[in-house]
Amino acid sequence: MMKLKCVSCKDEYGAVDAGTCRECYEEASETEEELKQEIEELKAKINFLRFSSCFTDVLLVAFDHDSGKPIPNSIPVPANKALLASRSPVFRAMLETEMEESLSGTIKLSDVSYDALRAFVNYLYTAEACLDDEMACHLLVLGDKYQVKHLKSYCEKFLISKLNWETSLMSYSFAHQHNANNLLEAALSLILDNMDQLSKREEYVELLEKEPRLLVEIYEAYLSRQVNTAAAGGGGHDDKEADLIVERINR
Amino acid sequence: MMKLKCVSCKDEYGAVDAGTCRECYEEASETEEELKQEIEELKAKINFLRFSSCFTDVLLVAFDHDSGKPIPNSIPVPANKALLASRSPVFRAMLETEMEESLSGTIKLSDVSYDALRAFVNYLYTAEACLDDEMACHLLVLGDKYQVKHLKSYCEKFLISKLNWETSLMSYSFAHQHNANNLLEAALSLILDNMDQLSKREEYVELLEKEPRLLVEIYEAYLSRQVNTAAAGGGGHDDKEADLIVERINR
Repeated sequence: MMKLKCVSCKDEYGAVDAGTCRECYEEASETEEELKQEIEELKAKINFLRFSSCFTDVLLVAFDHDSGKPIPNSIPVPANKALLASRSPVFRAMLETEMEESLSGTIKLSDVSYDALRAFVNYLYTAEACLDDEMACHLLVLGDKYQVKHLKSYCEKFLISKLNWETSLMSYSFAHQHNANNLLEAALSLILDNMDQLSKREEYVELLEKEPRLLVEIYEAYLSRQVNTAAAGGGGHDDKEADLIVERINR
Repeated sequence: MMKLKCVSCKDEYGAVDAGTCRECYEEASETEEELKQEIEELKAKINFLRFSSCFTDVLLVAFDHDSGKPIPNSIPVPANKALLASRSPVFRAMLETEMEESLSGTIKLSDVSYDALRAFVNYLYTAEACLDDEMACHLLVLGDKYQVKHLKSYCEKFLISKLNWETSLMSYSFAHQHNANNLLEAALSLILDNMDQLSKREEYVELLEKEPRLLVEIYEAYLSRQVNTAAAGGGGHDDKEADLIVERINR
């Protein structure tokens, strides 16, 4: 049987392993080169658009909500009004009107650590952040509160990539609290895949006490998924159960 | 002879037209998907980093150098000091020190049309510009003068893409004047490919009068190219001439 030589890996291959002809290969290589070129250009543009921290005219202070004082070991973070307003509609509203923040030149942010505040401001300037689980949560909260969509979605992606069964229930609750719909869906999907284990988890008891509605939503989603699977005629061990549900609903 | 079917264009192909095996094809497809995904993410980042025009605190005025007055039909373009300083080291130096511009809140730009000034400011905010030949020249001049490298290189790329023999000599002179090295090299290369036509051009006479040094540089580059070609043992009708040159140099 005739063997052809792959121009990429140099191995031989036959009809079963056939990929592309030479023309398509060359076209694809060219496309890849063009895409890489485009990426380089976009990166240069990003570099150009990053804001440098000069002409600061406002201070951001991490504040303790209860005591009404700046949190310990926190120093004010200087920033630029126009930059804040450009990145966040919430800051814009604060600063454009004659609100306290605009007059005093100080913006108080409650429930935020000093490190998170610094990282937040740095992201507004540069669109860059060094994330770990904790920082991603902090910045997602700030991104939600100050409507910095790009930051919020960046943190959501990070947290989704770290999702696992152990953390899914708390992630679900966290996502719910801060309107992180993509994270919510990803966590929910993971929970639904492990429904038989759900009530055995420690956090289940906690949620049952504090936010029973969230558990109800999970059960509702589970039921709805079963109905859909049954309606689509999907196989599996839940079929009989699902049939009964569909029957009951249709009655 | 066995024929294989290309999974991309669905045509049949044989050993001569062999491209890749299936594995390499799938890998390449995946890479392409990933690159496209990356491009989307970079574009979103660019969108986030664009500056919106709020909190303007400085005016840019197109000024006539000779009369010392604003040029006709030109209205001041409002901008933000921090933005200007962030994008251009020249503006930064102007605005950070107690110079006239900083105190008056007005920056005068000479030898620039109102349209070019508006386009310039818009580029500083958004990294976007609608170019034609004329606008690309105007913005390159501004990019050079105010050290906005990204804009300058953007205009250079545009002008290089439009280069042709008719315009190469003027482009060469223009590039020289505004330190646009990439454009300079591209124009020079085009000129060197058409040396026999050089002295017949109208602009040649003009340059001979105004900037004879530039013509000298062209001739020097031509000579150096010939020497290099000869040294590399390259063929062609200039060989004999080049051999003589090399011989003379080595003597």
